[in-house]
Amino acid sequence: MKSAGLYKIASLALICSSALASAARPQSYKLNPDPEGQYPRLGACPDEHSCIFPPDLSQFLPGSFFDLRVELHAYDVSNVTATPEPYENFKTTVRKDNGKWVDIDKFFDYEETPALENWDFEWVNSIEAAVSKEVDPVNVAVTSRIWRKLKFDKPGTYDVSVQYGPKEGYTVRYTVIEKPKKKAKNAILFIADGCNVGMITAARALARKHTSGKYHNLLSFENFDNLGHVVTNSVDGMVTDSANSASSYATGHKGSVSALGVYADSSADPFDDPKVELITELIRRRQPGKSIGIVTTAAGEDATPSAFYSHTRERGESAQIVDQIVHGLPDWVDAVAPDVWLAGGAEYFKGEEALNGTDYYSLLEKEHGYQVVLNKKDLNKYRDDDKLLGVFRTGNLDVWMERNVFINNTVGNAAAPDLSGNDALGSDQPGLEDMTIKALEVLKKRGGKDGFFLMSEAASVDKQLHPLDFNRAWADLIEMDVTIEKTVEWLKKNGEYEDTLILFTADHSHAFDVFGSVDQKYMAQHSSNKDMRDSIGLYAASGWPGYFDNDNDGFPDNWNPDVTLAAGTNNFPDHYEAFQLSGTGSRTPAVKGPDGTYIANKDDPAGKYGKGLHYNGNLPVTYNQGVHSMADVFIYSNGPGSDKFKKTIENWDVFYGLTEAMDLQRPTKHEKKK
Amino acid sequence: MKSAGLYKIASLALICSSALASAARPQSYKLNPDPEGQYPRLGACPDEHSCIFPPDLSQFLPGSFFDLRVELHAYDVSNVTATPEPYENFKTTVRKDNGKWVDIDKFFDYEETPALENWDFEWVNSIEAAVSKEVDPVNVAVTSRIWRKLKFDKPGTYDVSVQYGPKEGYTVRYTVIEKPKKKAKNAILFIADGCNVGMITAARALARKHTSGKYHNLLSFENFDNLGHVVTNSVDGMVTDSANSASSYATGHKGSVSALGVYADSSADPFDDPKVELITELIRRRQPGKSIGIVTTAAGEDATPSAFYSHTRERGESAQIVDQIVHGLPDWVDAVAPDVWLAGGAEYFKGEEALNGTDYYSLLEKEHGYQVVLNKKDLNKYRDDDKLLGVFRTGNLDVWMERNVFINNTVGNAAAPDLSGNDALGSDQPGLEDMTIKALEVLKKRGGKDGFFLMSEAASVDKQLHPLDFNRAWADLIEMDVTIEKTVEWLKKNGEYEDTLILFTADHSHAFDVFGSVDQKYMAQHSSNKDMRDSIGLYAASGWPGYFDNDNDGFPDNWNPDVTLAAGTNNFPDHYEAFQLSGTGSRTPAVKGPDGTYIANKDDPAGKYGKGLHYNGNLPVTYNQGVHSMADVFIYSNGPGSDKFKKTIENWDVFYGLTEAMDLQRPTKHEKKK
Repeated sequence: MKSAGLYKIASLALICSSALASAARPQSYKLNPDPEGQYPRLGACPDEHSCIFPPDLSQFLPGSFFDLRVELHAYDVSNVTATPEPYENFKTTVRKDNGKWVDIDKFFDYEETPALENWDFEWVNSIEAAVSKEVDPVNVAVTSRIWRKLKFDKPGTYDVSVQYGPKEGYTVRYTVIEKPKKKAKNAILFIADGCNVGMITAARALARKHTSGKYHNLLSFENFDNLGHVVTNSVDGMVTDSANSASSYATGHKGSVSALGVYADSSADPFDDPKVELITELIRRRQPGKSIGIVTTAAGEDATPSAFYSHTRERGESAQIVDQIVHGLPDWVDAVAPDVWLAGGAEYFKGEEALNGTDYYSLLEKEHGYQVVLNKKDLNKYRDDDKLLGVFRTGNLDVWMERNVFINNTVGNAAAPDLSGNDALGSDQPGLEDMTIKALEVLKKRGGKDGFFLMSEAASVDKQLHPLDFNRAWADLIEMDVTIEKTVEWLKKNGEYEDTLILFTADHSHAFDVFGSVDQKYMAQHSSNKDMRDSIGLYAASGWPGYFDNDNDGFPDNWNPDVTLAAGTNNFPDHYEAFQLSGTGSRTPAVKGPDGTYIANKDDPAGKYGKGLHYNGNLPVTYNQGVHSMADVFIYSNGPGSDKFKKTIENWDVFYGLTEAMDLQRPTKHEKKK
Repeated sequence: MKSAGLYKIASLALICSSALASAARPQSYKLNPDPEGQYPRLGACPDEHSCIFPPDLSQFLPGSFFDLRVELHAYDVSNVTATPEPYENFKTTVRKDNGKWVDIDKFFDYEETPALENWDFEWVNSIEAAVSKEVDPVNVAVTSRIWRKLKFDKPGTYDVSVQYGPKEGYTVRYTVIEKPKKKAKNAILFIADGCNVGMITAARALARKHTSGKYHNLLSFENFDNLGHVVTNSVDGMVTDSANSASSYATGHKGSVSALGVYADSSADPFDDPKVELITELIRRRQPGKSIGIVTTAAGEDATPSAFYSHTRERGESAQIVDQIVHGLPDWVDAVAPDVWLAGGAEYFKGEEALNGTDYYSLLEKEHGYQVVLNKKDLNKYRDDDKLLGVFRTGNLDVWMERNVFINNTVGNAAAPDLSGNDALGSDQPGLEDMTIKALEVLKKRGGKDGFFLMSEAASVDKQLHPLDFNRAWADLIEMDVTIEKTVEWLKKNGEYEDTLILFTADHSHAFDVFGSVDQKYMAQHSSNKDMRDSIGLYAASGWPGYFDNDNDGFPDNWNPDVTLAAGTNNFPDHYEAFQLSGTGSRTPAVKGPDGTYIANKDDPAGKYGKGLHYNGNLPVTYNQGVHSMADVFIYSNGPGSDKFKKTIENWDVFYGLTEAMDLQRPTKHEKKK
């Protein structure tokens, strides 16, 4: 053991929060701003020597399961001496409602103190360490214990404390909430990945009519009972990714970038991190009659859908994630095994990329009672009440534009879900509406009086905003609008509308907005920078874009009008921009230049083939596309329990609104003790 | 008179809206998309030959006043022949609830048919006409009649029709709403000009503490009862300016760019346009005991405040606008003469720029019962119950940063409100909090049991977003947050909280968002494009910015941390960006280059003096700053009547929510018939 002298001394004085510093509670750690700024030592470790996962201020339901990990960290930020050794003797205690401290093993009736684990990890603690090969990250030596599958049975305040030095310790406070009584039989969570408020406004301008500036009607979800905002940041940063944000919705806990259903500890193993229970797992334990559906236009092992059936620190572990659909994880609750699972991502269901080469199609049919469909026609024909697995393509499904307008762009994709190497034509892939309505049919049959839970994601709003393909992102958002309209119709027709909580939200923003309109004829005729910039109309001269929906299907009939939207985001690689639709597939704004860094792509049709406006990039040159942004996202809500979503809430609180509405917050007779 | 052959033939077929086309109603005009795209012929004229103002789908309160103008337009878009002559014989009729058509004079008991007026105007109908000197705009010849100060006394549906050719006519439909019964004694409308959702999120990140990503508390207004969105577009374009958007809030009618309390007709006179009644005028007529306050950090003749006491087609008519404070307009209701008016804009109150050289300070004191204060000290000392005029500077007030951090930047501004040529030091100017709380004190005294209406604007959120000075915009938004917090405290302390409807909204967006963080030390040490771009941390590496508020005054204590926000908008002139605070005053991103167009400013400290990242502009080169954007804005609401603001509403509907809550929608015993 080393003295405290080798530990890092914070350069800022302790900062105390009046909200947290109470007499009854030791307050031993720094609050933000963290002196490490962009490079904190894990987001969940405000204490300099120790970490407790779940972190301070976490909230739980009575009886919901979680793992608890304590880590002790030793390091020398000067990197001049050997890494010190971490404490091995530490004592973890728990108390309820400021009562008597009790040893954690005793408190949770844990049979044996977990074994001590050891590892090192590399803490990238500065931009120099991140960017330069000459500056080393800080080596951190770790000792740790993890208590698995704990739960708090009763509401109240719980403190967990680790004592490790002669006088040093660190305490976190958890809250276990009271049981409420509301009930929505069904809940549907629609997620338009990456969609911000600016995108909603743009979709309305494309898909709705107006007279002298007054819209005749708004988008389908704008009629919902309530509107709120969601704070999207993660444990470790202002700007989140889709894994940890969806995981917040699914668990009631903020996460870290790339993490699903776990708090990211410092160990290398992506499957040993402390878990928290998923809403879908809770449904299986507490309302086993309820049916569960997962629908996405992405690969079904992609971050957002995976958050509703898997646990891993690394969203890229796709093969393991598919396996968790029916096998779950050891030392944990049963697998979710959704009643309906409709998505892309076929390459992990069969063949060399599947876990141990398993044929999951066959396994799920033979051993788990699923029927499997692999194209739109078979999906639409499905009338049974077995569990339904639909996999329609390798990778992400093609976007609305390729499924409906430019079907030829899907010829030659060799993406057939049977991995035959044949094409998965756009016209053979179902859209979000097809999948969602079919999911509802099956879920109603299977859930019966116990109802259902459905997560339905328009994934490519995000996936098309990344490469700055705004047209394709708008189309996929409008597909969500139409899907929600048809869902409401279906619910009404099937007598489920009054009993269904519907949420429509996003998981994070892109910095998208519209600032004017573009005269495309003028843009086409001119090539000087000054003249092209003159093609943009502002304020009164923004007028109205030339999109129209005469066939009233909810989508513009024309995607190449003379007047388009002058629109974009605030972060980008070098690229050309002409505010045009690419007819040859999703755009590629930047390509690798001679030195391996990204430069503007002269073959990008949306950039007028290198003759549009040239944007100098403002992201690190290793990025070939735009990134997420920080702005709060919308949440539209309708039906029983929707009043919980009408103001600004944190992303983790979406879980609490959902579980309250669905009466999932208290144990039921179905629930096993362990 | 000419035949129809000379009129423009629309290139698109008629587009009928199912929502509008009813059997009972002639539908003679095209709906959007307008084939003119960016350059419609006035936004309010969907018919090709005629216009009626207010336009189709307008809504009114029973008994509220408005002017009605009919225009007949003749033009030849080919510009090859002489402009045809417009119809002079046209018949205007009105009907209620699909009843019998009645001549307009008879319907409104109008003593004499208004005189026929004639003028021409230039219709800029294409981008070529807007940009090139070689392409002429289309000359439009106009005949017109205007009926002034009309009102509908009873709720219902009213159609107004103009018949002008042998078979041609055009009809608009108005709605007069039912009288509701709710009552809020007081209403406060807070407006953060130009503020979008991204700005709210950024303000929270600067001004609030968190633990592992969970905020300890949100911003003051995020505790309000309800949250909604506001659709901001104007009559004539997707992207609005502050005049017509504020005018929508004040009148219940969408407006045109630069127009205040009027529908913009085609005549050149900025004071003859058809007016609609302001909420403040309605208060004076229906609840004369109520007091009215107008507070802004801008010049008080600027667009937003002016919308609450003046009528003109041109917001730039500042001298006339000041005169309207107490003199109003002929043939209209009495002047608003607010009980409290606190702002900048001194140059129009005295001296050569004032209307006819009038000394309004003296006039208002001697003839209109005002007391006048010209600095923060005298404002804070004011304890009387006379009307209060406070004018603290020529032009806009200095921003929070110059009033609180960089006071030296205000030395030498020669902006004293007495027009002496002395300085108006930042420390002598009140802030939004000072002005708002003082306004509340005076309004409570003057309104007594009848209550008050206050509009309080943080104007420089917009004014600092335009020149991309994000730091100054954040500070002025945080000043609004603190002002709202103090307002709630004041209302509670003074027993008015339960009786007060509080709204906090914006009038339009800027495309602002945060996409990461910036290591400023690294940025300072490097000058290559690649290295500077590496200073930006994304996702997990965005970490947290280095701002902190240890003194708990609601503002960050440090404005120059090592880690700043990587933030910006999606439209800009050429400029340099280093994500830094300018210590020498508001930034100037672009300056005129040798050819008179705008290029990046090498003296901009926020752009690292020409050594920051170079952004190529994407706006017309005549623009030296960013422009507004289209995204819906937030509206937070609290107190009686706030449930009217909880979903997505149109900007004109804010007026209806306000007047409903304040019980201003039905005539009172105080009301004069004419």
